Amino acid sequence: MKMKRKLVSELKNSIDEKVNIQGWIYKIRRLKLITFVILRDRSGLVQCIVDNNEFDLSKVKVESVVSIIGDVKESKNTLNSFEVQVENFEVISNVEEELPIEINKENLEVNLDTMLNNRVLSIRHPKINAIFKVQSSIVNGFREFLNKEGFTEIHTSKIVKEGAEGGTEVFEIKYFENKAYLAQSPQFYKQMMVGAGFERVFEIGHAYRAEEHNTNRHLNEYISMDLEMGFIEDEKDIMQVEERLLKFILEVLNKECKEYLNLLQLELPVIQREIPKIEFKEALEILNKEYNKNDLEGDLDPEGEKLLCEYAKERLNSEFIFLTNYPRKKRPMYTMPLGEDGTHSFDLLFRGIEITTGGQRIHNYDMLVENMKYKGFDPNNYESYLSTFKYGMPKHGGLAIGLERITAKILGLENVREATLITRDRKRLVP
Amino acid sequence: MKMKRKLVSELKNSIDEKVNIQGWIYKIRRLKLITFVILRDRSGLVQCIVDNNEFDLSKVKVESVVSIIGDVKESKNTLNSFEVQVENFEVISNVEEELPIEINKENLEVNLDTMLNNRVLSIRHPKINAIFKVQSSIVNGFREFLNKEGFTEIHTSKIVKEGAEGGTEVFEIKYFENKAYLAQSPQFYKQMMVGAGFERVFEIGHAYRAEEHNTNRHLNEYISMDLEMGFIEDEKDIMQVEERLLKFILEVLNKECKEYLNLLQLELPVIQREIPKIEFKEALEILNKEYNKNDLEGDLDPEGEKLLCEYAKERLNSEFIFLTNYPRKKRPMYTMPLGEDGTHSFDLLFRGIEITTGGQRIHNYDMLVENMKYKGFDPNNYESYLSTFKYGMPKHGGLAIGLERITAKILGLENVREATLITRDRKRLVP
Repeated sequence: MKMKRKLVSELKNSIDEKVNIQGWIYKIRRLKLITFVILRDRSGLVQCIVDNNEFDLSKVKVESVVSIIGDVKESKNTLNSFEVQVENFEVISNVEEELPIEINKENLEVNLDTMLNNRVLSIRHPKINAIFKVQSSIVNGFREFLNKEGFTEIHTSKIVKEGAEGGTEVFEIKYFENKAYLAQSPQFYKQMMVGAGFERVFEIGHAYRAEEHNTNRHLNEYISMDLEMGFIEDEKDIMQVEERLLKFILEVLNKECKEYLNLLQLELPVIQREIPKIEFKEALEILNKEYNKNDLEGDLDPEGEKLLCEYAKERLNSEFIFLTNYPRKKRPMYTMPLGEDGTHSFDLLFRGIEITTGGQRIHNYDMLVENMKYKGFDPNNYESYLSTFKYGMPKHGGLAIGLERITAKILGLENVREATLITRDRKRLVP
Repeated sequence: MKMKRKLVSELKNSIDEKVNIQGWIYKIRRLKLITFVILRDRSGLVQCIVDNNEFDLSKVKVESVVSIIGDVKESKNTLNSFEVQVENFEVISNVEEELPIEINKENLEVNLDTMLNNRVLSIRHPKINAIFKVQSSIVNGFREFLNKEGFTEIHTSKIVKEGAEGGTEVFEIKYFENKAYLAQSPQFYKQMMVGAGFERVFEIGHAYRAEEHNTNRHLNEYISMDLEMGFIEDEKDIMQVEERLLKFILEVLNKECKEYLNLLQLELPVIQREIPKIEFKEALEILNKEYNKNDLEGDLDPEGEKLLCEYAKERLNSEFIFLTNYPRKKRPMYTMPLGEDGTHSFDLLFRGIEITTGGQRIHNYDMLVENMKYKGFDPNNYESYLSTFKYGMPKHGGLAIGLERITAKILGLENVREATLITRDRKRLVP
């Protein structure tokens, strides 16, 4: 009869009991009579004491997977107020080769490429692992908030006949005898599902951009957290939802991720009562006047985003800032125009980077056809999407948050790849 | 000052109050003095009374989107114990064209192709809409159960260099100067993430199969609900998790989806204490002896699955049945062998169809290399996946549930496409 495995985090309630624990050997230190083994499982680390006369561990390497039976005894050590005195030691999976990276140090001191090449090992490091625990809580927060607000979760196709965002940056697929593309966003489908009567939908799924450039802020495949809602007044309703959503996510992180944030020595951003909003035009003026930056026209560049975030932090006491009323010529064809040149759209900047694009969409068929033409699209290629607007479409809008970007920025990571489990960029198809 | 919109479901608490409601016109019936308008929003239907002297609705068509201000008054009608006496009637988005399908009848009487071609309209039908509400609760149940059991949610790349499942049924992508494929499953990555220290992971994401055949049970793009867990004894641990998981999902549906199940006039399946298990070989014998079916060898065919489900229902009093110990030659290369010809793997059949494949995986590097060769794979093409097994891998296993299939079977739908928001099959790239 096998003993049931206990997690390290459960041992504090098993003092003076016999337990079975299983995990990876984090550290191993041989003395003359005994050997100290630090075992790591998904819940933490524990010190185990092995009698050298009973088990010869001289050939057992760190990161081997082992199953230990032993008695939990009170003890003062740097990890816990207990340790395990080993009675049986079984190697499930031995490490034969030298590890390509050292992962039992306080920090993982390798460059980004090495970290990504050795993804399975690098994620074993508690500080790297913590990134994805936090990321999973961000996703949970996004979903929990929207479920409570009457949104329906959807999953839409990533194989499309036409890109939603324009431009040529799409990956081509051979779909039997046809050509198709990987979706740049679920934009069309989420609008269609608002019109299909769900009214409020969200999707957490992959999005693809075949952009040639290799920067620390772009991925060719990323997770887009999208929402879309009907029966709004205008884009201000969407910004308001995002503000409440972000507050909720930060609360979830405060509740669920304390240990990870402590490990990473991080404090979460705080949203003061309201996220400040400035118009895009005003933002350009600020950049010009305050920072002598006047090389921008229709859109911001990375430097512009950084400076505006500095400005927001110093002058408006906020790490988040909404930029509103983006120029019509720079926004996608489905964006609701505002006046001659503006749009009912916004970006949200956070810690130097855009983490959200959103806005009100066009809900009127004729206006949408006209705007497609203005943008150089052929409405005949978008028949199925367009037909949505013939049969009763509410005023609606939505937004998308890049999961890797928001994770990286909340955790102070330099490169968005660090917040990506499996990276796809200009050069990387492996692992 | 605009009035805040109320949902139809909130009106029962607003008797004798003035409200603003917004939605689609479900039905409209003109009498001499008044017009009855049934308004539909995401929460339900309500009858509204319009005075023909005040508003001329002769040009307003069903499915137009409207905003109504009016007084909620007690009233006996077939929908509710109240109605709305209209004070202001505003059309947000008028329907100009004839609707291509009729959606205000009790059942949507169109064929599958028409239903899928007109997806936005067909989903407005409450009985179609209900399918996806139930589906979203299935996803929630899957996730909630696994979160509670210490699983971490992951999102892994769908662009891969090599297929995990073998065969040639992969979609090819142009990935810059390289060739790549759409992932057939997250198999490699979920195993890698077990080894990366998460121990227990799950993913709800797209999977792609470039299968040529067009059947009522296959999709070329579908949602795979995957889990993988380390530190198991063997595949029985995985079957046990699935049994508890399915019970939990059915509980969630019982709790969250009563109104949808009533609308669809359905009762949920029940899992008696334990799902029966029979070995694959025994299953073949049963088919032979009981049904005189003896044309099968290494795998079941659709008829075989159907007959075994009949058998399980009649003889074992279960709508679910596990088949275990599948032949090694029919299982993927990562499957843990059992004896000479068997494997530690299983399928779960439900209402005539396989809804899960799962099992224990090989965790030993040498054994995996050997099994790759046995299966005709070149280990050199799988270096990054294989390296996972060099540096300490626990015994592990997992499973995948096809979301559309389980939804269709729970809801008694003939074709898996009916449980797919946006279908991609052999012929369909639109919408």
